[in-house]
Amino acid sequence: MSELADRVRAGEPRAIARAISIIEDEPAGGAELIQQIFRHTGRAYLIGVTGAPGAGKSTLVDRLVGELRKTGQTVGVIAVDPTSPYSGGALLGDRVRMQAHALDSDVFIRSMATRGHLGGLARATSDASLVLDAAGKDIVIIETVGVGQDEVDIVRTADISIVVVVPGMGDEIQALKAGIMEIADIFVVNKSDREGTDRMIAALESVLALQTYGEQDWRPPILRTTATTGDGIDGLIKAVNRFRAHSAAALASRRRERIAARLREILVDRLMADVRAKMPVGALEAVVDRVAARELDPYTAAAQILASRRSSTGL
Amino acid sequence: MSELADRVRAGEPRAIARAISIIEDEPAGGAELIQQIFRHTGRAYLIGVTGAPGAGKSTLVDRLVGELRKTGQTVGVIAVDPTSPYSGGALLGDRVRMQAHALDSDVFIRSMATRGHLGGLARATSDASLVLDAAGKDIVIIETVGVGQDEVDIVRTADISIVVVVPGMGDEIQALKAGIMEIADIFVVNKSDREGTDRMIAALESVLALQTYGEQDWRPPILRTTATTGDGIDGLIKAVNRFRAHSAAALASRRRERIAARLREILVDRLMADVRAKMPVGALEAVVDRVAARELDPYTAAAQILASRRSSTGL
Repeated sequence: MSELADRVRAGEPRAIARAISIIEDEPAGGAELIQQIFRHTGRAYLIGVTGAPGAGKSTLVDRLVGELRKTGQTVGVIAVDPTSPYSGGALLGDRVRMQAHALDSDVFIRSMATRGHLGGLARATSDASLVLDAAGKDIVIIETVGVGQDEVDIVRTADISIVVVVPGMGDEIQALKAGIMEIADIFVVNKSDREGTDRMIAALESVLALQTYGEQDWRPPILRTTATTGDGIDGLIKAVNRFRAHSAAALASRRRERIAARLREILVDRLMADVRAKMPVGALEAVVDRVAARELDPYTAAAQILASRRSSTGL
Repeated sequence: MSELADRVRAGEPRAIARAISIIEDEPAGGAELIQQIFRHTGRAYLIGVTGAPGAGKSTLVDRLVGELRKTGQTVGVIAVDPTSPYSGGALLGDRVRMQAHALDSDVFIRSMATRGHLGGLARATSDASLVLDAAGKDIVIIETVGVGQDEVDIVRTADISIVVVVPGMGDEIQALKAGIMEIADIFVVNKSDREGTDRMIAALESVLALQTYGEQDWRPPILRTTATTGDGIDGLIKAVNRFRAHSAAALASRRRERIAARLREILVDRLMADVRAKMPVGALEAVVDRVAARELDPYTAAAQILASRRSSTGL
C-alpha cells in the first residue's frame, strides 16, 4: 500500500486507477491508502458540476478540461452519473471520454458507478478526489447528476459548485429551489442557443431575487454556454477564478466543515461496528423484533443496548 | 407527559396538536412521549404522497380524506411542503385546510415546517405519525414535496408511496427515475384533463418497462385523477386497497426495516453525544483543526478519539 501511495504521488495513471478501485471495493484498504496520502492533499481545487440528466454536463466538463489544459493546469475528473451513456460500465465510459484527451498524460478521467459502494457514494467520490489531489492534479472536477441527496452531498465536498440547467426546464426551477439551488455558486444555462434561454435566465433571476445578498456576499452569476461549440466556456473559467479569489478567505472554513463531517461519519461507522461486535450474535435483531412487536419502544431499546454494552465491558 | 399521552390516546385534537409541537421542538420531551405511546401504535395504515410542487398534492389529499371519511375511516394528515401556500406558517395552513373538514372531529390535519427540526425532519414526521396512530386514526397520510433525500426518507416511512405527477413534466421523468421512481407503489397523473396526459403516461410506462416484474410482484399502476373535480379519486382508493391487500404479508418486514433504521439513528445520536461528553471542551475541535491542517488523517484521528475515550473510562 505504501508503494502504491508513492506511485499515486508520482502521478502514475495506473496507480491512480488502482487506488480508486481499492477505494470503491475495499473499505479497509481504502482507509489505509487515505492514511498514507492524506498529508499530501489539500492543494487541488475541487470543482463540483451538477445538473439534471440531459443538461450536457459531460460535454461541458470536457470543454472545461480543454480550457484548463491551455493554461497548463493538470486536471482530474470523477464522473458520477447513473443516467449517462457511460453507465454501462466505468471502463467503457472512461475510454469514450478519454479519447479527447487520450494523448494528454496530465488529464485523468474516471467514471464511478452509483451503486454498491460500501460506506456510501459520497465517501467514495470524496476519497477518490483525495487520490487525484495527492497525484498532483491542480484541478479536480466532480461531475454528478443533480437528483438525490447523495449527489447534493457529493457537490458539497467541492470548493465550488456549478449547477447546469438547460432552456425548457422552467418547471424544474421550482423543484430545484429546495435542494440544489441553495448550493450553487455559479449557474450555467447550457445549450443557450436554444429557444427559451432568456426565459430560463429570468426564472433563475427570480429565484435569486428571493435571497438577500450583502455587499461582501457572492451572488451566483448566471452564465450562458453552448458546450458543443465551446461558446461561453472561457467566461465560465473566468467566473470560477473570480469565485476562487472571492472565497479564498472562506475556503479554509468550508474545507474544515467538510473534514468535521467526514470525521463524524468515520466515528459513527466505527462506534456502530463496535456496538454490533459487542452484542451476542442475533441480539440486535432480537431487540428490533421486540420493537417491531411493540413490546419495547425504540428509545428504551437504544438505552438498553447501550447499558448492556457498558456493563459487559466493565463501564 | 403521561397525562398528555392519555389524552392523545383518547383522540383529543388539542392533545394531538400539543404532542406534535413537543416532537417538533423538544427532542427529550418527544422521546419521552414516544416511550409512553409507542406500544399503542402500529394499527394505522400510513400513506405517503409525494410529487413536485404544483402537482396538486394538497387538493388530492383533501379529496382522499373526503373519500376515506365516506367509508367511516378516521384520518390524520401530516403535510410537509416548503413550497406550499401554507409554508407561511403551519397554523395558517392548518386553518385553510381544515375548513373542508372543519366540523369533522375524526380528521386531524397538521402542517410541518421543513426547517429547524432537531434530529431531522424525517424523525419529526415519523414521530408525528406515531402520535396520530396512537390517537386512533385508521389512516395517516404524509404529504411531502418530492425533491430531496429528506422527502424520500419521509415517504420511506410510509406503508404505501403514491407519486403524483402532472402532464407536461416529461423532462422530469428522467430526473425522477433516479430517486422517487423507485419508491413508487402507485403513480397518479393528476390534472389529467390537461393536454399531454397520454404522453405523460407513455413516459411513465416506458420507465416501468425497464423493470422486470415477476408474476407475484406488484407492478405500480398509473392512474388518472383530476383532484379539483374529484375525478379518479375512487379509483385511487381502490388501488390503495389492492396494494394493501397485495402487500399484507410483506408489511411486517417493511415496518421492521424502518424500525431497525430508526433504532440505528437513535443509537448513533446517543453514541456521538457520549463521545462529545467524554472529551475535554474543545478537544474535538482541536482534532478537526489538526486534520484540516493535514497533520493528521481522518481515519487515524477517529482511532485516536476512540482510544482516548476508552482509556479515560478505564476500558
